[in-house]
Amino acid sequence: MAKDKKIKEITDMDVDFAQWYTDVCRKAELIEYASVKGFTILRPYGYAIWENIQRIMDAEFKKTGHVNVAMPVLIPESLLKKEGELVNGFAPEVAWVTEGGSEKLEERLAFRPTSETMFCDHWANVLQTYRQLPMLYNQWCSVIRWEKTTRPFLRSREFWWQEGHTIHETAEEAQRETEQQLELYADFCEKILAIPVVKGRKTDKEKFAGAEATYSIEAMMKDRKALQSATSHYFGDKFSRAYNVTYTGRDNTLQYPYQTSWGSTTRLIGAVIMTHGDNNGLVLPPAIAPIQVVVLPIAQHKEGVLEKAQEVVNAIEAAGIRVKGDFSDNSAGWKFSEWEMKGVPLRIELGPRDIENNQCVVARRDNGEKATVGLDELVEKLPELLQSVHDGLYEKALSNLNEHTYSATEVSEVKTIMENGGGFVKTMWCGSEECEVKMKELAGVSSRNIPFDQEHISDTCPVCGGKAEKMVVWGIAY
Amino acid sequence: MAKDKKIKEITDMDVDFAQWYTDVCRKAELIEYASVKGFTILRPYGYAIWENIQRIMDAEFKKTGHVNVAMPVLIPESLLKKEGELVNGFAPEVAWVTEGGSEKLEERLAFRPTSETMFCDHWANVLQTYRQLPMLYNQWCSVIRWEKTTRPFLRSREFWWQEGHTIHETAEEAQRETEQQLELYADFCEKILAIPVVKGRKTDKEKFAGAEATYSIEAMMKDRKALQSATSHYFGDKFSRAYNVTYTGRDNTLQYPYQTSWGSTTRLIGAVIMTHGDNNGLVLPPAIAPIQVVVLPIAQHKEGVLEKAQEVVNAIEAAGIRVKGDFSDNSAGWKFSEWEMKGVPLRIELGPRDIENNQCVVARRDNGEKATVGLDELVEKLPELLQSVHDGLYEKALSNLNEHTYSATEVSEVKTIMENGGGFVKTMWCGSEECEVKMKELAGVSSRNIPFDQEHISDTCPVCGGKAEKMVVWGIAY
Repeated sequence: MAKDKKIKEITDMDVDFAQWYTDVCRKAELIEYASVKGFTILRPYGYAIWENIQRIMDAEFKKTGHVNVAMPVLIPESLLKKEGELVNGFAPEVAWVTEGGSEKLEERLAFRPTSETMFCDHWANVLQTYRQLPMLYNQWCSVIRWEKTTRPFLRSREFWWQEGHTIHETAEEAQRETEQQLELYADFCEKILAIPVVKGRKTDKEKFAGAEATYSIEAMMKDRKALQSATSHYFGDKFSRAYNVTYTGRDNTLQYPYQTSWGSTTRLIGAVIMTHGDNNGLVLPPAIAPIQVVVLPIAQHKEGVLEKAQEVVNAIEAAGIRVKGDFSDNSAGWKFSEWEMKGVPLRIELGPRDIENNQCVVARRDNGEKATVGLDELVEKLPELLQSVHDGLYEKALSNLNEHTYSATEVSEVKTIMENGGGFVKTMWCGSEECEVKMKELAGVSSRNIPFDQEHISDTCPVCGGKAEKMVVWGIAY
Repeated sequence: MAKDKKIKEITDMDVDFAQWYTDVCRKAELIEYASVKGFTILRPYGYAIWENIQRIMDAEFKKTGHVNVAMPVLIPESLLKKEGELVNGFAPEVAWVTEGGSEKLEERLAFRPTSETMFCDHWANVLQTYRQLPMLYNQWCSVIRWEKTTRPFLRSREFWWQEGHTIHETAEEAQRETEQQLELYADFCEKILAIPVVKGRKTDKEKFAGAEATYSIEAMMKDRKALQSATSHYFGDKFSRAYNVTYTGRDNTLQYPYQTSWGSTTRLIGAVIMTHGDNNGLVLPPAIAPIQVVVLPIAQHKEGVLEKAQEVVNAIEAAGIRVKGDFSDNSAGWKFSEWEMKGVPLRIELGPRDIENNQCVVARRDNGEKATVGLDELVEKLPELLQSVHDGLYEKALSNLNEHTYSATEVSEVKTIMENGGGFVKTMWCGSEECEVKMKELAGVSSRNIPFDQEHISDTCPVCGGKAEKMVVWGIAY
């Protein structure tokens, strides 16, 4: 009964995907709305997912020599405006502090929308010689962008992220850094979040304000829309020149370093929800699940059941697996639906008969499959069971991506594909922004990126009919 | 020569302690000033110390069931103003966001100076039943308080901290939480930072705005001033009532929960600097040192020296100790002084003759003691050597605290003590704010706290001569 009630509370994803998404965010207790319009609260369960993401990703950053710093959250307006393209890109979304300590400030201070300007200002101050290069910095923090419409994790006035900022002696080294970090993000999505992605370069129209080149990874959600999951930017020496960041080079002359930045956000949690979730709620990849295994005693009032269940929990915990025993007095049905809603990868059921037979039932959240496992081999088997959940999720997501990625040679073809459920559409492209805009008008799609894995689909741009050498992937973006 | 230059750059701590402190903060590359007045940048080395503090303290919080969340950084003015005392306490220090997305906001939004209001607002929204209690929340973030004068780590317009916020069914449970967290902070200071502290309750004059009781730990710096190193507050149900946080109790009636909050900040790094530092720079307790051991090859151009040094670094690293080999072409003297400045607990020197004898020299940063250690037993001996640095630091700090803690029965005595180098002075106190204010006027000291470890010094208050049952510790506060 409780179970029915719970499920009824979530909208069917095939009926209203957007509402289903919001329902999952709230019923799984990931987020809650705050009193400030457009802002959200990351609740303990949602924040625990973010902590796992941070821990794993941060360790990856450090393996390649990156270090963390903390920059001030407020940026003086004059500093923000030194690089014209950046400020033009972000100005409409900035929140301004204009009063401090009961007094009106002489100059407005921007709540950081991104920190390129602060890093450059700092480097201009401390960089002296090529011996200090490269500087490979990162910070974990929140930023504000004053969005008009907001959605949990996907678009929020404040969001949590990491922003990497690096400077290098040569353009080549900075370009390699940009690509290396994009590869890191792609690996993270595939190996940790079980989300396959399309790696590529953004068109000039879609690139980051002020960047020379922006690279992105694009994932396909269950509604076949695209979610840009992380970006990596190469700036050349444009910001160095604007902010007067210089150093004495090997040849004893004054040089400008080459710069990159790269970021990923709590939006990744949105990607996880919409890639793996189902009508029973959240489905979490094991690597980031706050609880990887939940142990549910069946008929727990019977003698010995709770004790045995606690024993099993202890053994699993001792093996370094994140486990929880739900020994509350809620019904088994309620518990099943609760932990399904919260997306716990494996559920262990343990009743009096199981205990008699020295076994338990292990159910996979990703496909509902149940297996009977001997209690003596349970702890040993859990890692491979968790891995099979990860693999199962990845394969399903990859099927969704592959099955709904199309090739087209005509605009009308793109339009038809989008009208019939949509997905990613690959076409050739002449490279003109005009054709990009026209594709949007005619078929409703925007360019996601120019994939690194290029294919030759035809010889001409489907929009203008001109010569086309690049393949673009199009879609509807979150 | 390079060494002399480096040391000359730091002011002697006995000549100008404040300048010595700022010099260490900058020469050890912990912080740098930012373009925004009153704001600082935590540089990689400073941030790495903060990361170690966070990692260790966060694990302690979690052991007692606390979970992390993320609350919005902006608080609507109307929400902030619901609890009168709190807003009166913080209003003069608030930074206000008044414009967002090119438009003037209808209501000013405060950059959080502290988040009691946000937590209460959230709990009013999600709390329903006693079954959800206690809620034991914490968040790691930065806050802004618009201070007029600022100093690195000690007083800064933005600082990084953790703020714990909890609600409980009973007053007793909330009081226990308040005390438990104060004990946690005291243990952290002693066992991790090697800083002894005085635990006690703040007088009403010095307590947190809106709190029913505030507890603090007070540490003595090398200049004998007091540094309040962490605080823990008990609110009763005052905020619950102001923000209408209610739940259905065990007896099925509507109840207000009892609340606590507790916090510690990057100020702890300031405490470390001023407790352990010396005229050669920073001295770090091993538990939070980003580099615990530095390996310096001597005569590194000689055959086999660099290879052997690298071998030693690898062996130490494999044992889970944070180690760095400085193989740069700077002079040995420069390296000695550089890593002393950065406070690395142990320095290993390894030259051709050492290698011949299969040994090395290990120097302790805390007391300069050198010992010859066989290379075969080096890795095994390092943990106890690191422990002895910790113990040495703690003992020195404890001596400083004990030697400069005095008892007095007359105001004139307090004044004389403070004129002769100062420290902590314990006296009885009648409990009136009037006497507290007068003590400040007459002897220049403010009450630090009412220590848990009470002593009977006399029968009367040294200020008014009235009956006094409580002992207070006085000092000059940072």
